[in-house]
Amino acid sequence: METAPHGSDARGARAPRRRRASHSLEAVVAASVAILDESGEDALTFRALAARLGGGVGSIYWYVSSKDELMARAADQVLEGVLLRTDAVAAGSGDAIAALREIAVTLYEEIVDRPWLGAFFLRDTDVQPNGLRLFERVGQQLMRMELTPSQMLDGVTAVMGFVIGVASDRGQDAERADDGTPPWEGLEAAEYPFLFAMRDQFLLHDDRAQFLAGLELILSGLQLQSGRA
Amino acid sequence: METAPHGSDARGARAPRRRRASHSLEAVVAASVAILDESGEDALTFRALAARLGGGVGSIYWYVSSKDELMARAADQVLEGVLLRTDAVAAGSGDAIAALREIAVTLYEEIVDRPWLGAFFLRDTDVQPNGLRLFERVGQQLMRMELTPSQMLDGVTAVMGFVIGVASDRGQDAERADDGTPPWEGLEAAEYPFLFAMRDQFLLHDDRAQFLAGLELILSGLQLQSGRA
Repeated sequence: METAPHGSDARGARAPRRRRASHSLEAVVAASVAILDESGEDALTFRALAARLGGGVGSIYWYVSSKDELMARAADQVLEGVLLRTDAVAAGSGDAIAALREIAVTLYEEIVDRPWLGAFFLRDTDVQPNGLRLFERVGQQLMRMELTPSQMLDGVTAVMGFVIGVASDRGQDAERADDGTPPWEGLEAAEYPFLFAMRDQFLLHDDRAQFLAGLELILSGLQLQSGRA
Repeated sequence: METAPHGSDARGARAPRRRRASHSLEAVVAASVAILDESGEDALTFRALAARLGGGVGSIYWYVSSKDELMARAADQVLEGVLLRTDAVAAGSGDAIAALREIAVTLYEEIVDRPWLGAFFLRDTDVQPNGLRLFERVGQQLMRMELTPSQMLDGVTAVMGFVIGVASDRGQDAERADDGTPPWEGLEAAEYPFLFAMRDQFLLHDDRAQFLAGLELILSGLQLQSGRA
């Protein structure tokens, strides 16, 4: 890593500093994502980051002003991966619903193992250009369907909200202690007919398959709207 | 609040202690919800809780063993309110989709202003009977539609995941600083045709209406499945 200049002169002018530091800012953010992925949100300290990059804590502050900004930039770097993986389908002229599905699934896959990401998604658009690009990309698919402006915005919000909400919750589930006790253990069958009817389903259940099934409900709702518009 | 007995004898036997302490456990949990609602998750300490209840910190530990357990119990007490508010519609024989909608909206309303709740939803079923009751209640509506067992479980998961995910995210949004800058400010119209097309919609947008519109997509997807099953 380049050694960053310190002192009030260097830190005073925000815009030029950002431009000159862009390459190393990327390195700082990449190292942050690595720490977050390996050890979680609590492990990401400016001290741990400096140690990993081989510099001092002061040099990190030269690039980012707070842990919140670092988390927001880390989230945005992950979204860059989603954009890269969906460039082809977004540029294609295939079925809009199929493209929406692929973008949504790719986003889910990038978020689901990152319990820290959901809370920082589109949190600070000043430092998160990729969040807007992703929003735009999903929206462009809806523009290809026959929907009203309000249906388009609601549709983007529903798809993004479902993916981020479910993926973030699954990520937190993974961090929870699970003692393996089925939820219906100790319940009365007469009081919980649904949970009892679902016993076999629970044993077979697969988070990803459930996410896909829920996404399909939203997509079929959109398809229905498109036919009616 | 009753004064709780201290010492290892009183703390030793878990089950009888719980039974004897049930009334005051409710008071501890109610005070926790009040602190969480007024001042947020960080403000909920055993010390703050003891001060509010007029006892010592030791007496809180007599009822709950950790802040995580307290948060789980607080989340479950909020869900009790959702159950009470939806008792009539759940017991009725009206349209299953209408009942699902009402339960989902009631849950959304109870969660959306509580950014702390989402992460503790159905986290520890040992101390969260109401989470299971709510899951059961949503499931019973799906049992009234013509769906396969797998469609039922996927449907419950989609509805609950959407409500909790979107409501939790809106709750966190409310805590974020918003400088009022529209997201398209400074973007190129040619690069962001969707965001530009949505400018008027963004100004009119209403979180609750967007939630309702997204929920409607899921419900219409379920309705469609029901017709096909």
